[in-house]
Amino acid sequence: MPVRQSFIPVAPDGEFPLQNLPYGVFQPPTGDPRVGVAIGDQVLDLAALWRAGAFAGTAVEGEPVFHQGALNAFMALGRPAWRQVRDRITELLAADGGSSLRHDAALRAAALLRQDAVTLQLPAVIGDYTDFYASRDHATNVGTMFRGADQALMPNWLHLPVGYHGRASSIVVSGTPVRRPWGQTKDAADPAPRFEPTRELDFELEMGALIGSGNPWGESIPTASALDHVFGLVLVNDWSARDVQRWEYVPLGPFLAKNFATTLSPWVVPLDALEPFRVNGPAQVDPTPLPYLRGAERSWFDVQLEVLLQSAAMRAQDAGAQLSLCRTSFRHMYWSIAQQVAHHTMGGCNLRPGDLLASGTISGPTPAERGSLLEIAWRGSQPITLPTGETRSFLADGDRLTLRGWCQGDGYLIGLGECSGEVLPAHAGD
Amino acid sequence: MPVRQSFIPVAPDGEFPLQNLPYGVFQPPTGDPRVGVAIGDQVLDLAALWRAGAFAGTAVEGEPVFHQGALNAFMALGRPAWRQVRDRITELLAADGGSSLRHDAALRAAALLRQDAVTLQLPAVIGDYTDFYASRDHATNVGTMFRGADQALMPNWLHLPVGYHGRASSIVVSGTPVRRPWGQTKDAADPAPRFEPTRELDFELEMGALIGSGNPWGESIPTASALDHVFGLVLVNDWSARDVQRWEYVPLGPFLAKNFATTLSPWVVPLDALEPFRVNGPAQVDPTPLPYLRGAERSWFDVQLEVLLQSAAMRAQDAGAQLSLCRTSFRHMYWSIAQQVAHHTMGGCNLRPGDLLASGTISGPTPAERGSLLEIAWRGSQPITLPTGETRSFLADGDRLTLRGWCQGDGYLIGLGECSGEVLPAHAGD
Repeated sequence: MPVRQSFIPVAPDGEFPLQNLPYGVFQPPTGDPRVGVAIGDQVLDLAALWRAGAFAGTAVEGEPVFHQGALNAFMALGRPAWRQVRDRITELLAADGGSSLRHDAALRAAALLRQDAVTLQLPAVIGDYTDFYASRDHATNVGTMFRGADQALMPNWLHLPVGYHGRASSIVVSGTPVRRPWGQTKDAADPAPRFEPTRELDFELEMGALIGSGNPWGESIPTASALDHVFGLVLVNDWSARDVQRWEYVPLGPFLAKNFATTLSPWVVPLDALEPFRVNGPAQVDPTPLPYLRGAERSWFDVQLEVLLQSAAMRAQDAGAQLSLCRTSFRHMYWSIAQQVAHHTMGGCNLRPGDLLASGTISGPTPAERGSLLEIAWRGSQPITLPTGETRSFLADGDRLTLRGWCQGDGYLIGLGECSGEVLPAHAGD
Repeated sequence: MPVRQSFIPVAPDGEFPLQNLPYGVFQPPTGDPRVGVAIGDQVLDLAALWRAGAFAGTAVEGEPVFHQGALNAFMALGRPAWRQVRDRITELLAADGGSSLRHDAALRAAALLRQDAVTLQLPAVIGDYTDFYASRDHATNVGTMFRGADQALMPNWLHLPVGYHGRASSIVVSGTPVRRPWGQTKDAADPAPRFEPTRELDFELEMGALIGSGNPWGESIPTASALDHVFGLVLVNDWSARDVQRWEYVPLGPFLAKNFATTLSPWVVPLDALEPFRVNGPAQVDPTPLPYLRGAERSWFDVQLEVLLQSAAMRAQDAGAQLSLCRTSFRHMYWSIAQQVAHHTMGGCNLRPGDLLASGTISGPTPAERGSLLEIAWRGSQPITLPTGETRSFLADGDRLTLRGWCQGDGYLIGLGECSGEVLPAHAGD
């Protein structure tokens, strides 16, 4: 069966075909920020479409949820509303339909903008940000480095998706430069802690689930229906200062080592677009999880992931040069998003529309699939060499780090867009 | 010098005299939630005063910051605006002034309501909630229980205010019942984890600083000016499930053990009301903190604190019966609020208006000053006996737990109000 096409041309390897339709928030050249959908190299202005009556008969007909600088109000409407809107947008954009948009030049002029003419913002107001630690390969790598291979995983790790609360205020959208933080560090040989810019700035390759409809405080969400509460997925770079983390993290976990910045990709790919890429995860048999974590079949997603690095020197030689640091898939996670949602709410903690559940660093089973420099350079013992001859154990000032993600469909590609940021030098000391 | 009085009568031991003027958000019998100030047993409706022009000539004259269900917009205006408004309210309420309010019966009728006729809500939209661990006595007690007296404090503890990110969505206002959470637990003798209602439900006596004006992302706040960013203080009960915490907390810190509920007192006492109660903290000389944590003189507050317990059986015998579990002072903290703010922002993490920085459990140096049941009953080894003959190592269903706080001035009292909650039984299992 031929793949359905949009009347807006999309290249065969384009990230935003008719099958994707990711949501984002954009600032147009004039007017207030609003909700849009990416199609090819265009953005479809949903607020303009709504004003033109294009959503008549759907759940948003009387709800101005797109005239807002965040997706939260739309997210709160729930999956049936999301599906109605997605179906309507598909019909508006399909080349084979009797689309009013296709044949209405004035509406097209009002509702379609080039992506490079708008500024993308964070897609949602994120009330709470939770970061999990759900990749067995990542946890094993880190545990092996710090405790040896025999006791790489903590005793609780195979029984529950370990997670902690992150910082919502410092979440920024892709493209925002990130300043190297100062921090308190102490190596084993230091008699006292030091106050200095981190020497071990790292990235973490993660995926993030943005919650759509939440749960009432005091009520839990079962694993089997957990994905109904997830609006869509984004790429997440959880910037980390490893030396700060090592000194501060006992006994209450990471704090300043993580809370200076977290970067999100701007386009939220709806779960409905990812339906063909749902897969089973690893067998969870030794041990079998407690009953509340069962029923997670096909709640993993086969999203291909890549991490790219460009140093300032590489950029000076060739503006497009990038070194691939990692290639892996989101399917390698041990704990799925559904299990994370169920665990998170099991004691009654309420999730709200716009909340972010990040996966934790995604590493796959082979050395080429390691999702952090800590692992790639194995705690500094195996520095990588860049095309310029520079070496890296951790990130240097001027480095530009980009995460990419995509699902390869049969004749089309679902892109996650990119999640990038450049490292600015630390502020000068006093 | 006689103490200045309000024209609204306040009992000598009343918590809300003219010297206090705490801010809160209340739902009146009719109309939308709005900002008010407690005076005696009344609440002053600032939105009604504003409409009547009572704030002409102040920073809020053109800003409808009181017609809102949260203090955030007012908080964001900064300390000079807070002082102008506080001065204006003082003049409006003073018995010795030529107050327009005192002599305007219609305005009094519109702007003064009995506190028992309104419903108090959370005072602010809390974007991020951070919980510190800043009491040396508490950290020493807990460390002694779990690691022995020799290594009670972790190596980093005296060098930085240890903290972690908490959950904002499950913060509730005083009076809200709290349901006992289910959780995953594992005792050393258990071959596998269990899924059951927590058997070790605890309270934590804490104070919370609500941030007024924040800092730009990437910039830090010096210790010496940190209190300028704090709007005021509230009481905080950081409900905890100790058995869940013990099993889940390595290596990333507490998660479900804490995120099911946190209770705040509704009235925010402004720092300006607490100025007479600023004191120096403990000598920080062994070790001396790094320079960025110095300059904290007089940034501790001598707030008297008490924890009261009422079981269902006590209540059945006498509706007013309460057992005092703890009496201590906020002055015993090792790390001050100013140092917490400076540390929190030192790597560039941005604080926003309404953010909550809680102190961590407040315990004083003597056994009668322990701020959690974990410490009071010493990990269950010394259960307490209630007047009914019941015993407690942790909280039972039906227990009502109340935190109180006050500063004893010269001829007046500044009350923090109360922070209470009753334990509901866990949901039935499947």
